[in-house]
Amino acid sequence: MLYSNLAVNEKGHLTLGGADTVALAKKYGTPLYLMDEDRIRENMRLFRDEMKAHMPEGSLPLLACKACCFKGLFRIAEEEGLGADLVSAGEICTAQAAGFSMEKTCFHGNNKTDADIELALDAGVGYFAVDNPEELEALEQAAARRGITQKILLRITPGIDPHTHKKINTGILDSKFGEALPTGQALTFFDLAAAKPHLSVEGMHSHIGSQIFSYQPLADAAEIMLEFLSMLRESRGFEAKILNLGGGFGVRYTDRDPVMNYREELRRLGREIDRLCDRFGLRRPAVILEPGRSIVGDAGVTLYTVGSVKTIPGVKNYVSVDGGMTDNPRYSLYGAEYTVLLANRADASADFSASVVGRCCESGDIIQENVPLPKPQRGDFLAVLTTGAYNYSMASNYNRIPRPPIVLLRDGRDRLAVRRETFADLLQYDL
Amino acid sequence: MLYSNLAVNEKGHLTLGGADTVALAKKYGTPLYLMDEDRIRENMRLFRDEMKAHMPEGSLPLLACKACCFKGLFRIAEEEGLGADLVSAGEICTAQAAGFSMEKTCFHGNNKTDADIELALDAGVGYFAVDNPEELEALEQAAARRGITQKILLRITPGIDPHTHKKINTGILDSKFGEALPTGQALTFFDLAAAKPHLSVEGMHSHIGSQIFSYQPLADAAEIMLEFLSMLRESRGFEAKILNLGGGFGVRYTDRDPVMNYREELRRLGREIDRLCDRFGLRRPAVILEPGRSIVGDAGVTLYTVGSVKTIPGVKNYVSVDGGMTDNPRYSLYGAEYTVLLANRADASADFSASVVGRCCESGDIIQENVPLPKPQRGDFLAVLTTGAYNYSMASNYNRIPRPPIVLLRDGRDRLAVRRETFADLLQYDL
Repeated sequence: MLYSNLAVNEKGHLTLGGADTVALAKKYGTPLYLMDEDRIRENMRLFRDEMKAHMPEGSLPLLACKACCFKGLFRIAEEEGLGADLVSAGEICTAQAAGFSMEKTCFHGNNKTDADIELALDAGVGYFAVDNPEELEALEQAAARRGITQKILLRITPGIDPHTHKKINTGILDSKFGEALPTGQALTFFDLAAAKPHLSVEGMHSHIGSQIFSYQPLADAAEIMLEFLSMLRESRGFEAKILNLGGGFGVRYTDRDPVMNYREELRRLGREIDRLCDRFGLRRPAVILEPGRSIVGDAGVTLYTVGSVKTIPGVKNYVSVDGGMTDNPRYSLYGAEYTVLLANRADASADFSASVVGRCCESGDIIQENVPLPKPQRGDFLAVLTTGAYNYSMASNYNRIPRPPIVLLRDGRDRLAVRRETFADLLQYDL
Repeated sequence: MLYSNLAVNEKGHLTLGGADTVALAKKYGTPLYLMDEDRIRENMRLFRDEMKAHMPEGSLPLLACKACCFKGLFRIAEEEGLGADLVSAGEICTAQAAGFSMEKTCFHGNNKTDADIELALDAGVGYFAVDNPEELEALEQAAARRGITQKILLRITPGIDPHTHKKINTGILDSKFGEALPTGQALTFFDLAAAKPHLSVEGMHSHIGSQIFSYQPLADAAEIMLEFLSMLRESRGFEAKILNLGGGFGVRYTDRDPVMNYREELRRLGREIDRLCDRFGLRRPAVILEPGRSIVGDAGVTLYTVGSVKTIPGVKNYVSVDGGMTDNPRYSLYGAEYTVLLANRADASADFSASVVGRCCESGDIIQENVPLPKPQRGDFLAVLTTGAYNYSMASNYNRIPRPPIVLLRDGRDRLAVRRETFADLLQYDL
């Protein structure tokens, strides 16, 4: 199977973390997001422990909550000692509601409104990753009004292409995020920030993209950022406490994706950062990484019920399920690949090939094309793997379809973490 | 301007239906969906009156609610005498909650679950547009259990390419919707349906795609469908009461889109249907059309506040606003074109060109590229035109961003129709 937490039991049912997905589909209904909490914790511990062991003191993973955001996940991150990368006032509120330690959070975003800034200051977020001069000015004024000094990082675009998908590639120069280093704008930005009496520049932040399967692009970014820090130390006397390199480690959506050994790659990254600090004669800053997909991606499986199976002679087969782009818009958005299985006959041979499509009145509502399956029929359960990241968080109510619940699986027990939306929920905003 | 309901007032502010958009942005906050109710009603009346005057008795437009769905819109459709095209249990519930006449509804969808079917029967939807044999069987059984006869249409794929965008093109043979005519599957489907004792086949339904700027592709579909009906009459003795040709009339997103005279095109379509019925010797069935975009598209304007303006030398300019793919995912999904203006300086010359991007932590969060604007600054208001269709209905909470409210404008008055989501709303599902 794609991941070690997946298997097929004696009934021929797909299991996730040992739990029978068919039994869960019947218990909670479909569509259904399952998340293997044991796997989430395992991933969190891996990042936490490797970063502690192989990176400078104070190094810490922050859970990139945009990958998946609900109260229960913050509680897990808190218990496992992670911080959180928050990208909106809504994510801040969710972290607060879960009792998360706000001093371990970093508030990101290319466009923080004045209201966002006030809310984040009220919440006591640890760091602002300041994106642009307008935000710098608004934050300085807000901090001044409160008579506080706010710790900040500066979002820098290092100009690296990690050779990943265009839409999730944020480190190249053509980016809405941050201030560009090669153009000299990052230096100007630093000077602006350093002159703000109510802001304390603690370090830098960069994020070069997603689905990166090697430490190397992050090491390349680290080199550029550390060289910049070295220049800042020499020319400005600035010593960075933090180097935040963002996220980006990849997950396997299909067996064509490489198997990444996070442990080994983190060690390599740590060694490379040490080497670079030595080379630039820099005191080692604490390293922050912001894993999201690599924490929750492989923990997730989405379950659907098949509604119709259609063969158009000479064209193709269609399998329609009771979810689709509303709960997983990634094929519609990016043509993203996924592995799809028949959960209730996971051991049957795949003698049929179909487009697996959703229930929306929209032709682009596709989950995956050319899926090999045992020929399904109405009532069968379909599983889409590696849906822990950017599925629930990107879900919509298009066609007024309620969003599925999230069930967490831990130690062989299942519990509801996010309840299913009801039709009444959808109506609550209409006057 | 792109539409006659748009203008610039003496303050240089964009107006929609005579209302000052800047004043509304200040009153309700941003992001904000404005909808010109007068224009919606005007569009509804046009379809209603032209179809009554130029199409067979009983012809009626059904509002395609997937374009935009909230209670207030059903009330307007009810007052204007339209029916409704509903594609999910959620849309049915919304229509019911608005007190809509359910006998004037048609329930669509390629994958109706057993629960959907029960809910729709409970609600008393007028027609099911039955998509596939599995649904036919499930509906027959449900109707039999109730001892009723349910009126149905059969969803047929006529095999027409209206030369529109791939993802919104549903009439070609490669479609998840309906049963294909050219393959003979439609005939088999009819025979299956006609044999069901608790279902009454009232006619056929086809939908060939969207953003169609001429009656001709719909007339082509009508020809194919009427020929099929002619064959069914001769071989099966079946006389259709209804020919539902779906929706698809286009709207202008930019001034490069053609100006479509709906009135004239509807008349032409009516004449062509008359001619075709004569040619095939058919009694004229009532014609159903399902306009969505063409009813609400040009009624909508979205307002944003600018947060940051960035110039990357040698690359491009970025203008970040306080919304984005969460309230309008159509650029992310389709690369959709839009017209963007600076609402508070709508008469200033556009001496600046920028990518207008959203606030999500995602590089693909783009509203429009290469937008000519007067150079904006933080606090300016940006207007995106023609956002009445497939914006609110496709909105998400990605990055935990609350969805904007909808304000209706009628006779110079504004009123809230859908309230803004709050952070507390976002948290209500988390256990």
